[in-house]
Amino acid sequence: MTQIAIVTISDRASRGEYEDLAGPAIERWLRRVLVEPPDFVRRVVPDGLESVRDVLIELCDQADIDLILTTGGTGPSQRDLTPEAMQQVIAKELPGFGELMRQASLQHVRTAILSRQTAGVRGRSLIINLPGKPSSIDVCLGAVFPAVPYCLELIGAGSIIVDSSVFQQHD
Amino acid sequence: MTQIAIVTISDRASRGEYEDLAGPAIERWLRRVLVEPPDFVRRVVPDGLESVRDVLIELCDQADIDLILTTGGTGPSQRDLTPEAMQQVIAKELPGFGELMRQASLQHVRTAILSRQTAGVRGRSLIINLPGKPSSIDVCLGAVFPAVPYCLELIGAGSIIVDSSVFQQHD
Amino acid sequence: MTQIAIVTISDRASRGEYEDLAGPAIERWLRRVLVEPPDFVRRVVPDGLESVRDVLIELCDQADIDLILTTGGTGPSQRDLTPEAMQQVIAKELPGFGELMRQASLQHVRTAILSRQTAGVRGRSLIINLPGKPSSIDVCLGAVFPAVPYCLELIGAGSIIVDSSVFQQHD
Repeated sequence: MTQIAIVTISDRASRGEYEDLAGPAIERWLRRVLVEPPDFVRRVVPDGLESVRDVLIELCDQADIDLILTTGGTGPSQRDLTPEAMQQVIAKELPGFGELMRQASLQHVRTAILSRQTAGVRGRSLIINLPGKPSSIDVCLGAVFPAVPYCLELIGAGSIIVDSSVFQQHD
Repeated sequence: MTQIAIVTISDRASRGEYEDLAGPAIERWLRRVLVEPPDFVRRVVPDGLESVRDVLIELCDQADIDLILTTGGTGPSQRDLTPEAMQQVIAKELPGFGELMRQASLQHVRTAILSRQTAGVRGRSLIINLPGKPSSIDVCLGAVFPAVPYCLELIGAGSIIVDSSVFQQHD
Repeated sequence: MTQIAIVTISDRASRGEYEDLAGPAIERWLRRVLVEPPDFVRRVVPDGLESVRDVLIELCDQADIDLILTTGGTGPSQRDLTPEAMQQVIAKELPGFGELMRQASLQHVRTAILSRQTAGVRGRSLIINLPGKPSSIDVCLGAVFPAVPYCLELIGAGSIIVDSSVFQQHD
């Protein structure tokens, strides 16, 4: 069965000082879009290079997760280190994901260019960085998710089927 | 005389199991657009880091090719290693080419973001990665080619003149 | 008081063979947009990896400049080495700036994709590369500047307030 991991990256959420809203928002979005619900794995880790790198490597190499969605840690602040962790984890970067997510977010907020989100492949796992704000998550997932099933197929990961009627049309 | 190389990157085409359709499609497109036909050099190589790197270096350093167009090997699959080869070959990456080609392709297919195409300069040669599918080649060339003559001039390569009436207007 | 540095990167301007038009154009633009004028620091350096790298490091680490705007050296020519210097200076790259500046310039000139402009953070300084041509500077600043005040806040730099009525609306 196809496995999807959702990784919330947040110092405050990992210490329990703050309720993780982004992780559940991603799961809800996926349950609405996916025709057959996958196995969901959920993690909450603090910001940081090692914390993010280690959980991503474990999810790819030990847990054989097909699709990993992260939320948080992609901004320009000192503690935002998700992109740095990504560079140590992924074998192939897919720059089109970050470009399109920034472009889609830019229709809503002019600070969208501050996001350093990207996506990449490690072995048979696809990892996509999403923003931390729940309101931006829908915009980003809606923009890039139509390309995800074919990407999973190309990298030899488990398959997913999306209900494309859910998506707002692109053009 | 200005020299343009077209490099088809494909395991199957290089073994002769598959007819190279992309290479001829690129040459046809160029013959339509260029006012004065250049010397065309054609190569077919298997996917792979070394195979692509070696042919690109030879075309730049030994054959002094002005413009090299590759087709294939830019997706997220395991054997898609053209972008990795590019990183070892080019001195200066021109990220705007990949961005615009993905954006133009996105008007047609939502999987366009899976492409890792880029462009870059080595010495006096400009290298541009095109997709493998002939149908996407026209879209990508049409998007970026108007910037190619000036780029060749800036890097000290041989000049080309394009018949700009052929291009669909940009805005 | 918030400090903004404007760095003109040009062999000819640094030798006095050519009047620096880009630096003053950037300062004029900022004086029109910023509610409270900051301290302006102005530099003119020749093209080159070391010349650009050294002035950027000094402005970030010694002079504690909050925002550094460079102009010039971002094309594909041999002497265009601003992006190479940036890679040695910045700790975090913000790819959305370059993407949006190229996209905005593309509405005016199809050679906009030749620009290798980017932006990034070093310590508490934000560095943004602008093109060398005064006519393109307004387009690029207008596109990305709305995100700058929040970025400065996120990295702990001095604050600036922009008169948003000056900007052309984005959508």
